Amino acid sequence: MNEAPPKTIGILVFDDAEELDFTGPLEVFATARQTGLPIEIFTLGWPRREVHCAKGLHLVADHTLADGPQPEALLVPGGMGTRPLAKNDAFLALLRQKLDGADWQLSVCTGSALLGRTGLLDGRRATSNRIASPFFRDSAPRATYVDDERYVRDGNIVTSAGVSAGIDMALWLVGQWFGVELARTVQTRIEYFPEPPYADAAD
Amino acid sequence: MNEAPPKTIGILVFDDAEELDFTGPLEVFATARQTGLPIEIFTLGWPRREVHCAKGLHLVADHTLADGPQPEALLVPGGMGTRPLAKNDAFLALLRQKLDGADWQLSVCTGSALLGRTGLLDGRRATSNRIASPFFRDSAPRATYVDDERYVRDGNIVTSAGVSAGIDMALWLVGQWFGVELARTVQTRIEYFPEPPYADAAD
Repeated sequence: MNEAPPKTIGILVFDDAEELDFTGPLEVFATARQTGLPIEIFTLGWPRREVHCAKGLHLVADHTLADGPQPEALLVPGGMGTRPLAKNDAFLALLRQKLDGADWQLSVCTGSALLGRTGLLDGRRATSNRIASPFFRDSAPRATYVDDERYVRDGNIVTSAGVSAGIDMALWLVGQWFGVELARTVQTRIEYFPEPPYADAAD
Repeated sequence: MNEAPPKTIGILVFDDAEELDFTGPLEVFATARQTGLPIEIFTLGWPRREVHCAKGLHLVADHTLADGPQPEALLVPGGMGTRPLAKNDAFLALLRQKLDGADWQLSVCTGSALLGRTGLLDGRRATSNRIASPFFRDSAPRATYVDDERYVRDGNIVTSAGVSAGIDMALWLVGQWFGVELARTVQTRIEYFPEPPYADAAD
C-alpha cells in the first residue's frame, strides 16, 4: 500500500451523480492545488464525457473513465445514478480495475455502494449517506457499516457520509496528505466556517 | 417589492465562476424542489451556454443569460471570472436588466461585486468573500460592507460571504421562503451537519 500523497486525483461523474458530492471535494482539492501544489485533478465520465447530473447540471468531463488517465486517487460520488450502475457489470469491472490501479480510493455518499459492489470493501469499515444505508448494506454485505462518522478511513480507502460530508473528508485528506497548515489555508479560502441556520434540525 | 417565494431560480455561470459558489445553493434549492415544491431551477451562461469554471469544471448551461427565461430569483456566483466581468459594460447592463426583472437578487462570494458594479447595492448592506473585500469595496463604493455575517439580507437582496457560505444562505432562504421544516428536511438529506477538521483554523 503506497501511502504517499497522490499526484493525480480523478473524479468520476455519471448521469444522475449528485453535484455537491463531487464539487465539494473538487473545490477543496483544487483550492489546495492553487497554492502551488504539484497535483493534477481531472474528471472522468461514464460512459461518455457528457453527463447530466442529479440536480440538473450538464457537464463535459475531461476524459472518459475507459480512456482517461489512471489517477493515483479516484473519487466516486453518489446520487441516484448509483442505482443503475450498481447493476451494471461492465461498469463495475472497469471501476474495480481503475480502483485497483489507484493508491487511494475515495467515495462520497452512495459512491461507497459502488465500491462495495466491486468487492473492494469486503472486510473493511466504511460509511455512506445515512438515508441510503439499506442500499449500502445490500451492496457491501461484507463491510462493517459505520453510521456515526462524517468519514471513515480504512487503509487507503476513505468513504464519507452524505453529500456535504465530502467537503469535510476532502479537507481532512488535504491535511493528511499535504499538512494541516495547508488544509487550514484551504478552509480559510473557501470560508468553510459553517453556520447552518435553524440549528436544531434532526440529525 | 414582491416578497413572495420565487417560482423560478436562475443561476448565472461564466468562465472562471467558482464551482462551489453555485453548486452549493443549487444542491440546496434542488433538494427542496425534489420534495415536491413547484419551483424550476435553471442555469444561465454568459456569454454562451458552454463555460469553463474556475476549478476546471466544463459546463453546458441550460440557456444563455441573454436569451434564457427571466427568473424570479437570480443567483450570481463569484470566482476569478468576476474580475473581467466587472469591467464589461455590455455584461453589466444585461445583468442589471435581469436583476431588475427578478424579485430576488442573490449572490455568493465576489458575485456581490458584480451586483455592486451594476449600482444595485447603492445604499444597501452587503457582504462578500473576506479575502476579496477590497474588490467588493471598489465595486460597490456606496454599499455598507458587512464583514461578520455569513449572509446579509437587505430587502430582497441577499449576499453571502465566500464560497461555502452560499450553502448556509440557500438553506436559510429555503426556510424563509418555504418554511423552516422544509429547510431542516433539506439539511438532513444533504447531511449538512458539518464537522470541519483541524478546527482551530484561523477565521
